Amino acid sequence: MLRLASATPPAWASKTIAHMDEVLLDHAHCEKKAASTAINFIFRYPEYPQLVTPLSELAREELEHFERVVGLLRARSLEFKRQRPSPYAGRLVEIARKEEPHRMIDLLICCAFIEARSCERMKLLSEALGEHDLQTLYADLLASEARHHATYIDLARQTGAIDDASLERRIREIGSHEATVIADAPDLPRLHT
Amino acid sequence: MLRLASATPPAWASKTIAHMDEVLLDHAHCEKKAASTAINFIFRYPEYPQLVTPLSELAREELEHFERVVGLLRARSLEFKRQRPSPYAGRLVEIARKEEPHRMIDLLICCAFIEARSCERMKLLSEALGEHDLQTLYADLLASEARHHATYIDLARQTGAIDDASLERRIREIGSHEATVIADAPDLPRLHT
Repeated sequence: MLRLASATPPAWASKTIAHMDEVLLDHAHCEKKAASTAINFIFRYPEYPQLVTPLSELAREELEHFERVVGLLRARSLEFKRQRPSPYAGRLVEIARKEEPHRMIDLLICCAFIEARSCERMKLLSEALGEHDLQTLYADLLASEARHHATYIDLARQTGAIDDASLERRIREIGSHEATVIADAPDLPRLHT
Repeated sequence: MLRLASATPPAWASKTIAHMDEVLLDHAHCEKKAASTAINFIFRYPEYPQLVTPLSELAREELEHFERVVGLLRARSLEFKRQRPSPYAGRLVEIARKEEPHRMIDLLICCAFIEARSCERMKLLSEALGEHDLQTLYADLLASEARHHATYIDLARQTGAIDDASLERRIREIGSHEATVIADAPDLPRLHT
């Protein structure tokens, strides 16, 4: 369902859960970035009214998750602060074509893959964390990520700016690119490495 | 309570309610811009953790209002689309000092004044609209605008980056500037003209 072209190696989760403070901070940044990206689509593409309400609702949900993760950081006596991000999202969107409406379609598909990879990774974290107090967080949120993945693919279709066969082909192309980008990401304790 | 240095002339509301379709579209843009501005503070000033949760909550509320206004546009068979904005907000923030943390303080105060002016204008609209179907919208939202005004002033104080006397002085200075900017705004059917 998630259309990912590669599966994360099982060793990723066991290695990553040794650094949950850093992962949690990265997670907060990811939720904030996701909210901001959704709002930016509304700023950039007001001529596609079908994007407006779903992406505003999605942004609100990402902000709720952001606040939840910031609360969990504080429960661990940590604060939200700057952090070196994974280059994953920046490299992923390099595949987006420059001319419109192709750029919009490609960016919507890239967002779908970010949500898909987050969902896959959260599932792995939730399984690896076992009885850890953060297990519930990832078990709760992975369903939203899967839903957001589907929302972004549906929105790309609903713009009417691409036919179904071309959309399917572009999803496969961006999926292959995503698998390369995630494989090449540096070895940091982040959701997307 | 709102600290505005000038009152809107009564003629503004009677003139403006003749163009409610345009005002409603402007209102949608203002709510979206308010959400985006709140999130941008979190991106720009992560070293002030006291801003994080209040501004994320405020952004979610602005997005809820945005969705409500977009729904009202649709109920009038209109759609969200591009619109020439009032130059008000752009000119208002020209007063913000360049160096930090003064810039952050000034921008928080500017946001407080945008919320204050919105509150004043929504009250005037709600009174002038009488039995109009949009009267409830402005009657409902003006309380949030007043609350957001207070939030921005409180946050400026809570950063600890300015003492109380200096904050009071800066609020008066930016208030005078805001009164000039709103008086000079072009004659368009917008919330801030």
